[in-house]
Amino acid sequence: MAGSSFGNIFRITTWGESHGAAIGVVVDGCPAGLELSEEDIQVYLDRRKPGNSQFSTQRKEDDKVEILSGVFEGKTTGTPISMLVRNTSQRSSDYSEIASYYRPGHADYTFDKKYGFRDYRGGGRSSGRETIGRVAGGAIAAKLLKELGINVVAYTESIDDIQISMKNFDIYEARRNKTGMPDKYASEKAEIYLTECMKKLDSAGGVIACVAHNIPVGIGDPVFEKLDANLAKALMSIGAVKAVEIGDGTKVAETTGSKNNDSFRIDEYGNVSKITNHSGGILGGISDGSELVVRAYFKPTPSIFQEQKTINKNGENIDIQIKGRHDPIIVPRAIVVVEAMTAITILDELLLNMSARVDNIKKFYE
Amino acid sequence: MAGSSFGNIFRITTWGESHGAAIGVVVDGCPAGLELSEEDIQVYLDRRKPGNSQFSTQRKEDDKVEILSGVFEGKTTGTPISMLVRNTSQRSSDYSEIASYYRPGHADYTFDKKYGFRDYRGGGRSSGRETIGRVAGGAIAAKLLKELGINVVAYTESIDDIQISMKNFDIYEARRNKTGMPDKYASEKAEIYLTECMKKLDSAGGVIACVAHNIPVGIGDPVFEKLDANLAKALMSIGAVKAVEIGDGTKVAETTGSKNNDSFRIDEYGNVSKITNHSGGILGGISDGSELVVRAYFKPTPSIFQEQKTINKNGENIDIQIKGRHDPIIVPRAIVVVEAMTAITILDELLLNMSARVDNIKKFYE
Amino acid sequence: MAGSSFGNIFRITTWGESHGAAIGVVVDGCPAGLELSEEDIQVYLDRRKPGNSQFSTQRKEDDKVEILSGVFEGKTTGTPISMLVRNTSQRSSDYSEIASYYRPGHADYTFDKKYGFRDYRGGGRSSGRETIGRVAGGAIAAKLLKELGINVVAYTESIDDIQISMKNFDIYEARRNKTGMPDKYASEKAEIYLTECMKKLDSAGGVIACVAHNIPVGIGDPVFEKLDANLAKALMSIGAVKAVEIGDGTKVAETTGSKNNDSFRIDEYGNVSKITNHSGGILGGISDGSELVVRAYFKPTPSIFQEQKTINKNGENIDIQIKGRHDPIIVPRAIVVVEAMTAITILDELLLNMSARVDNIKKFYE
Amino acid sequence: MAGSSFGNIFRITTWGESHGAAIGVVVDGCPAGLELSEEDIQVYLDRRKPGNSQFSTQRKEDDKVEILSGVFEGKTTGTPISMLVRNTSQRSSDYSEIASYYRPGHADYTFDKKYGFRDYRGGGRSSGRETIGRVAGGAIAAKLLKELGINVVAYTESIDDIQISMKNFDIYEARRNKTGMPDKYASEKAEIYLTECMKKLDSAGGVIACVAHNIPVGIGDPVFEKLDANLAKALMSIGAVKAVEIGDGTKVAETTGSKNNDSFRIDEYGNVSKITNHSGGILGGISDGSELVVRAYFKPTPSIFQEQKTINKNGENIDIQIKGRHDPIIVPRAIVVVEAMTAITILDELLLNMSARVDNIKKFYE
Repeated sequence: MAGSSFGNIFRITTWGESHGAAIGVVVDGCPAGLELSEEDIQVYLDRRKPGNSQFSTQRKEDDKVEILSGVFEGKTTGTPISMLVRNTSQRSSDYSEIASYYRPGHADYTFDKKYGFRDYRGGGRSSGRETIGRVAGGAIAAKLLKELGINVVAYTESIDDIQISMKNFDIYEARRNKTGMPDKYASEKAEIYLTECMKKLDSAGGVIACVAHNIPVGIGDPVFEKLDANLAKALMSIGAVKAVEIGDGTKVAETTGSKNNDSFRIDEYGNVSKITNHSGGILGGISDGSELVVRAYFKPTPSIFQEQKTINKNGENIDIQIKGRHDPIIVPRAIVVVEAMTAITILDELLLNMSARVDNIKKFYE
Repeated sequence: MAGSSFGNIFRITTWGESHGAAIGVVVDGCPAGLELSEEDIQVYLDRRKPGNSQFSTQRKEDDKVEILSGVFEGKTTGTPISMLVRNTSQRSSDYSEIASYYRPGHADYTFDKKYGFRDYRGGGRSSGRETIGRVAGGAIAAKLLKELGINVVAYTESIDDIQISMKNFDIYEARRNKTGMPDKYASEKAEIYLTECMKKLDSAGGVIACVAHNIPVGIGDPVFEKLDANLAKALMSIGAVKAVEIGDGTKVAETTGSKNNDSFRIDEYGNVSKITNHSGGILGGISDGSELVVRAYFKPTPSIFQEQKTINKNGENIDIQIKGRHDPIIVPRAIVVVEAMTAITILDELLLNMSARVDNIKKFYE
Repeated sequence: MAGSSFGNIFRITTWGESHGAAIGVVVDGCPAGLELSEEDIQVYLDRRKPGNSQFSTQRKEDDKVEILSGVFEGKTTGTPISMLVRNTSQRSSDYSEIASYYRPGHADYTFDKKYGFRDYRGGGRSSGRETIGRVAGGAIAAKLLKELGINVVAYTESIDDIQISMKNFDIYEARRNKTGMPDKYASEKAEIYLTECMKKLDSAGGVIACVAHNIPVGIGDPVFEKLDANLAKALMSIGAVKAVEIGDGTKVAETTGSKNNDSFRIDEYGNVSKITNHSGGILGGISDGSELVVRAYFKPTPSIFQEQKTINKNGENIDIQIKGRHDPIIVPRAIVVVEAMTAITILDELLLNMSARVDNIKKFYE
Repeated sequence: MAGSSFGNIFRITTWGESHGAAIGVVVDGCPAGLELSEEDIQVYLDRRKPGNSQFSTQRKEDDKVEILSGVFEGKTTGTPISMLVRNTSQRSSDYSEIASYYRPGHADYTFDKKYGFRDYRGGGRSSGRETIGRVAGGAIAAKLLKELGINVVAYTESIDDIQISMKNFDIYEARRNKTGMPDKYASEKAEIYLTECMKKLDSAGGVIACVAHNIPVGIGDPVFEKLDANLAKALMSIGAVKAVEIGDGTKVAETTGSKNNDSFRIDEYGNVSKITNHSGGILGGISDGSELVVRAYFKPTPSIFQEQKTINKNGENIDIQIKGRHDPIIVPRAIVVVEAMTAITILDELLLNMSARVDNIKKFYE
């Protein structure tokens, strides 16, 4: 089935395998007239590029993006924007062994059973490199959102049980350090933990939070195209994410209505606001004007260097030891992926919302 | 935007408001030849019917379903199955007051801003009654899955901080008691808690777990139509759900790869199995043959009888006291909704998977 | 497969069989704030109602529509509008015989082979009554288009080889007479032809033209969601239509570029216009501001009372004589169906077009 | 809006402009296990390549395809197949002038009004080069269909009023000559006509017929996803097509039911057949097992070298004379485009049909 597209009006279609010739995305439905350069995309791609720190795979890839269509004289034309990143550092030899067995925690077994065989080189389509297309598409969505005054910002909220403290919050710190944590002290602790983890030939998980400011009230469509429902799909579709939450998320199950309800208030400037924001900016699947808050929980990288038990294609129980270049934690490089998917989801719903009311349609076409 | 449809091949389109003439669903793409009666649907609807216990709204509705199309001589014909439930107990008078203000935790404000006005009677389209269409559609999906040997079963896993214990697990107990907990002792504690909660004019939240057995390996499509991504959307689209997780869910963020990876094994019967199931039955977005485990976290009912602060349509800060008939907890009646959405999602991916391989297509058409 | 939905933002989902309990449609994505009553729908349904003349089946159906959702205080709310028409004149006895054989020109054989069996009563889902849902949905689209100044008007252009003359053109005539021809003289000739046809126990075909005025420039999306491509699908999906054309249609194959190109001109009021309109109002799949012209070619009703050769379910060659109540020509009752499908297609593209440009999006959300 | 995708399960997403860096397509949902090489695609692309005869633009393009993903060890993997053709012969200077005015019969005006500006170089996205993506995608669909025994074959049926004669029918002739007509004599006449046409600085239109053999009974979904409805959309979406017909097409409007109905017969081998095939292989939107027949009517190339009247961007009436390299007729190079779109449509419906019946689903998953 065609499962590589996301979005309704603003739609990305990603393609490419870890060790194929290239990885890319077609962004269809991007409105015309957005100033766009390869540099706009590159800054996003650089944030997920491997080799930025010791906590990321040592695979060397420049991940230089090439825009092949949809932009003319520096502006989007309304037609599909095709973008491509060449794979340059495929060392297939690293992967020849894994052709014969199924790595625990990976999609080797399920791809093989579904399709009859698989591109085993570096995980093929289920590799983390698949997210390049998402990030390139998300960079465009984020740029358009910015022009509408909407900022989408993600960061690492925790690694294992090391949480950031909001009183130390500094988003620039998150962009500087190796963990993506907007808290210098938490990040230092996390780095020590990760170094320890690597020594044990093990890997770690964590949580990425994503917030968006200035979303207009009214974005999202009942019943199945709710903003939160689409965000849940968007983020759960990222490999390694096992839970998604909006606002207070899992905590709402252990509170009471009197505590969880956010009271509306007219603030000192005469604007509608909420005293609290347990809802994370969404009510009934529609943005309520307060800050959007969403979180994705990432599992530890399944590729670890310890000996593991598994089976091979002949149906025999075997012990394996994975080689190659792998991130001991996915979280820092996934921050920009979370931002990208969130931006795409918000933008798509924002465009869909324009035709929600007859009076707006009349005004548009008069 | 058309946001009331869910599914690709097997697709439900729901419609209807709390206080309109009726609520219903069109199930399109249901394969031909499934034996189906109104009774098959009714048993599912009865599980979400109001008035079953003191922890559910006292609104009296029979919620009798009528099948209007798509079934002939007791079997589905392959054409759309239209189903309808008449609303019989609309007491609009209860709701006249709420027309003028925005209830905290509800979609009143967001609907008003999005559409310019709203059907304020009982929450209109954002009422919990909207789920009738989901449950009626899900009953069909669940029936077809059962014929394929796949059982989808949901139950209450916790209410506030009262958790079930797996050693007391009894699914029949869950179907008998008022909490939906498959643990007699936990359920009794929860009832005491809920009674207390009602006395305080407050409401409670909880967690619903849903498991599915016997799903074939290979269901789900990379990259965006992953089984877990679609489950996340399916469940997050249910009103009051604020978090969704697969398998170990949020816990994966605080473990290590060596603990979280599920080792494959050939079991004593020569079958592929996994020693553990942290993944909840999904790897790379595709079912891995083990038990599917998914959880939805529900917020406390926003309609509480305590005095609350909010604003009215004129932009004034006011204090309100909600009247009417409301569930002090949504969870017990939502169990069947979670089952329904899970069943629909699995079935749709199961049908989509049939065309994944050329050899299967050749066999089908030879 | 779910094949009963049409449209992206404004989407109809139709359901129902000729002899089931009812026929209906869910209109999802209708913008909020449109004044709408059952009467608005009824006037459209009355135009396709059986029994209006001797050239239409004598089956007696009132086809009274009931709006079940999506309208509150006389206006659409933005949520799905469910509409239903009860079948009241099902005489299944008429159809018992046809269960055993396959009528030439009908879908009996193909449904049986696809689904393993079929609802044979009156054609089941492939009956012309299926168009009730289209017309009810189209009535809403047409009403909204009218508020934007866009009129969609269809009429019979020819019956067999009897063509209307544009110099006699009178659309009110088309609404009065039994053929739907906007030419009194042609209509009289056609009535004589049809009467003759009925005497011979035969049936006739014809052409319906549909024009739309005042469509803004820019409606339609390259490459596959072109306005003409979607119109072609919309009209070809109507049972009995075997050809669809835009503007000069089939004639373009026998002309030259110098004759077929429409020259642009600035007219006396300073507006852009075209000297001719061979293109039928569409260039590159996008509306060009001139009159939209589309035609659908209808085959003669396959149900004729002459003896015909066919096969039965046992694979035997047999001779049959169809009984029952059948239109000797489909065209007059199909006019409103063509209008409906055209209106839905235009409206959907009109809504989609609102997000085509960044500057418009900025203006909308500023 | 995202308008560059076609198909449900087997879906192509095309991108690229005439004078951009490249043109391409992502084929998503292609079943796994199909042997596929660049050569399979190239033979199709070569059939639409410019410069093959004097009746085609003299632009020199090799149109060499590169497969970037989705194929491993010579077989499709089930993941998206990205294909790219570099543009090598962009002479933008040819087009600098047309930036300022709107060519009659082209999409210049409508693109400008829709998007605010346009990539005017060679027609940008509305160039005939856009069909490269369709053809590359169609080559894959056609290859898979062939493995199922289904052949899709298109040819020129007429140019201006010069028709082929079925008694001279020779499909190899069509592949050899410059007109694509499977009739040596008609082709010679047409070549004379076209040469004359070019001398007059004019262009010609024509009709392409496409037939498909061996389609199983049961392909296509009522009501809106009918095989003929999707074919109509598929073909009408090709630039320059102004009419589409199935089987006897427009002629059905002037015949009678007794003549148009195709009688079913059990043939001498005990198989179901039809005595005639006026329906063109489709009944009720579903394939009936006989030959599929579909036709597309192409307008003359709008780019002609005669002086033409039009307007410029400043709203002035002007006379223009188009320069550059243009086909005097689109038809010969469009044959393979018609084949491609027909193949994609059939394949998609074929895959969708696999889940139409419960008994087949049970057999598949048992």
